Amino acid sequence: MQFSVLATDGSARLGRITTGHGTIDTPCFMPVGTHGAVKGLTGEQLAEAGASVMLANLYHLALRPGIDLVEGLGGLHSFTGWHRPILTDSGGYQVFSLASLCSVDRDGVSFRSHLDGEALRLTPAGVVSMQERLGVDIAMMLDECPPWPVAEEVAAEALDRTVRWARKAREAQSTDRTALFGIVQGSFYPRLREHAIEELASLDFDGYALGGVSVGESKELGRGTVERFASALPSGKPRYLMGVGTPADILHAVLHGIDLFDCVLPSRNARHGVAFTNQGTLRLKNARFRDDDRPLAEACPCPACRQVSRAFIHHLIRGGHPTGAVFVTLHNMRFYLGFMAHLRQALASASLVGSAVEIARSHAD
Amino acid sequence: MQFSVLATDGSARLGRITTGHGTIDTPCFMPVGTHGAVKGLTGEQLAEAGASVMLANLYHLALRPGIDLVEGLGGLHSFTGWHRPILTDSGGYQVFSLASLCSVDRDGVSFRSHLDGEALRLTPAGVVSMQERLGVDIAMMLDECPPWPVAEEVAAEALDRTVRWARKAREAQSTDRTALFGIVQGSFYPRLREHAIEELASLDFDGYALGGVSVGESKELGRGTVERFASALPSGKPRYLMGVGTPADILHAVLHGIDLFDCVLPSRNARHGVAFTNQGTLRLKNARFRDDDRPLAEACPCPACRQVSRAFIHHLIRGGHPTGAVFVTLHNMRFYLGFMAHLRQALASASLVGSAVEIARSHAD
Repeated sequence: MQFSVLATDGSARLGRITTGHGTIDTPCFMPVGTHGAVKGLTGEQLAEAGASVMLANLYHLALRPGIDLVEGLGGLHSFTGWHRPILTDSGGYQVFSLASLCSVDRDGVSFRSHLDGEALRLTPAGVVSMQERLGVDIAMMLDECPPWPVAEEVAAEALDRTVRWARKAREAQSTDRTALFGIVQGSFYPRLREHAIEELASLDFDGYALGGVSVGESKELGRGTVERFASALPSGKPRYLMGVGTPADILHAVLHGIDLFDCVLPSRNARHGVAFTNQGTLRLKNARFRDDDRPLAEACPCPACRQVSRAFIHHLIRGGHPTGAVFVTLHNMRFYLGFMAHLRQALASASLVGSAVEIARSHAD
Repeated sequence: MQFSVLATDGSARLGRITTGHGTIDTPCFMPVGTHGAVKGLTGEQLAEAGASVMLANLYHLALRPGIDLVEGLGGLHSFTGWHRPILTDSGGYQVFSLASLCSVDRDGVSFRSHLDGEALRLTPAGVVSMQERLGVDIAMMLDECPPWPVAEEVAAEALDRTVRWARKAREAQSTDRTALFGIVQGSFYPRLREHAIEELASLDFDGYALGGVSVGESKELGRGTVERFASALPSGKPRYLMGVGTPADILHAVLHGIDLFDCVLPSRNARHGVAFTNQGTLRLKNARFRDDDRPLAEACPCPACRQVSRAFIHHLIRGGHPTGAVFVTLHNMRFYLGFMAHLRQALASASLVGSAVEIARSHAD
């Protein structure tokens, strides 16, 4: 994997990541295909929406269908039919989201499967090996993502483990084919974050993520962490803000130097009939859309907007018809990916900082 | 609407229906989009699969979103974004499928909505008017579809109503833009079917359907009715066998002179992970597909077969991932529509009857 910063505007960066499966222009949004596909969409549809990289999840894939199986079928690209870059998260986030099903110790995390109770052991070296066997382009180290609120000493203990795991992850890396990103934890304690960055930077990862944001804290606390620590991450490597967020959150983070994003919002909200537009979100279940013959967004080139009206999507969503969720997912993906392209264009002309207020206003949440 | 028989082979016919929204080459399979879309697919995907006409349902659309609304938005083509021909069934089939929610009298059917209990009254003239207001290309008359088994005198009474409704439907027709098909009922009593055909033929409908098949009878009884009555329908008009069936059922009916088909099998089975192939159906949930890296069908041009393996679809279907149902639906639609194209090619070279046994063998159910 190679990374170049092509242009900057304030702290914001225009960049390009080159992988064995193609390039990723940054700032970039990575659609979430936890099990290998975005819910309701085919890979062709996701590519048509403009996605250059998909995010999948090691924890979920390790449980089903299992690493051996995917490796035996030629790796995750071959298995999913998605031939552009893939990043996998390691399962560290599941320490947060599936807390009741796991126990953390000094050397790793033991899960009981949320599907059938089967045991799954994740270790810092093990998850690197598993992701390399999946053949993904970017692997994430195993980390421990504490919830918020959390006492500083508990967060510090978790961070100690994560830092130890970072060393073990780096030592376990066995191929250049799969890049490895470190994850900076430390909750909302600046001292811990500073320590984490110092420790991880010394390990010279291929990229750096800010983890542990969007775990229940206030918007101010989350944004404050981005403002303080995004540009403290090594500048020659891609910077990834995990699990964030709304278009406004993304713009904010780009302005502070973040390059990569993932979030379930565009797909999960779509399934609840919530569409993103430049004029704010539309709740398609709302009765006011019953006879609205406009597309979700004017001049949008997505398959929903070129085929059907808000009224038809309202009808489908109200009836629980799966095509309703598909249409809104297609639209929201195009919206997010088009938004990122817009940010890259503004960066290419060094006009992002100057137009940020206007962009924020026209992408209200 | 115009209809021409272009070639025949035994009782089988190659034909073409011309409507205001395009042509329908027959024998033709009409995908079922009850509420205006095939579940999980966009109209573009359905068109790409080769569909030339979509079936929707008046009963369901009248309840939600309502005829006034669709008419106000420019009709059903405009509302759904499907600009090829549309045929709507009238709601007569719901007398069978929603029997506990309706009562039939001399002049029509009164439903309590299966959604919210609201009253819906369907009359023979009313359903013609409603379908004309939807602007569909082909409307079906209101009929009464009895279950099986049913006593002959009960079936005869139902048929008397249907015949009376046929006259009222024909009288209610007010535009050439929407063709009107008569529906031959009579259950599995040949005397009743003969009577129905005689009565309806005298009304000179734009097309004729065999209804009341696939309502719980044996395969022999259903096929026997097709064998005896398909070619008794007026030969200068399209002939439509409602709600049938498997590829083998369709081949059988084409050989006996049927031109049009609809059935939920390819879409409903897809949602349960059952794919159609020339070598029979595949139950994708089955463990034997876990590591099967072949496409659903060799040389199939559908989006599923060009993107992913049986193993990936197995993984998605087992996990209840909506993309699994989408992939199999895309494949099954392409399979059914490709099967019909194959039958038309054989008819064009007058080789259908000669190759029927071979075709039946290679499309095992």
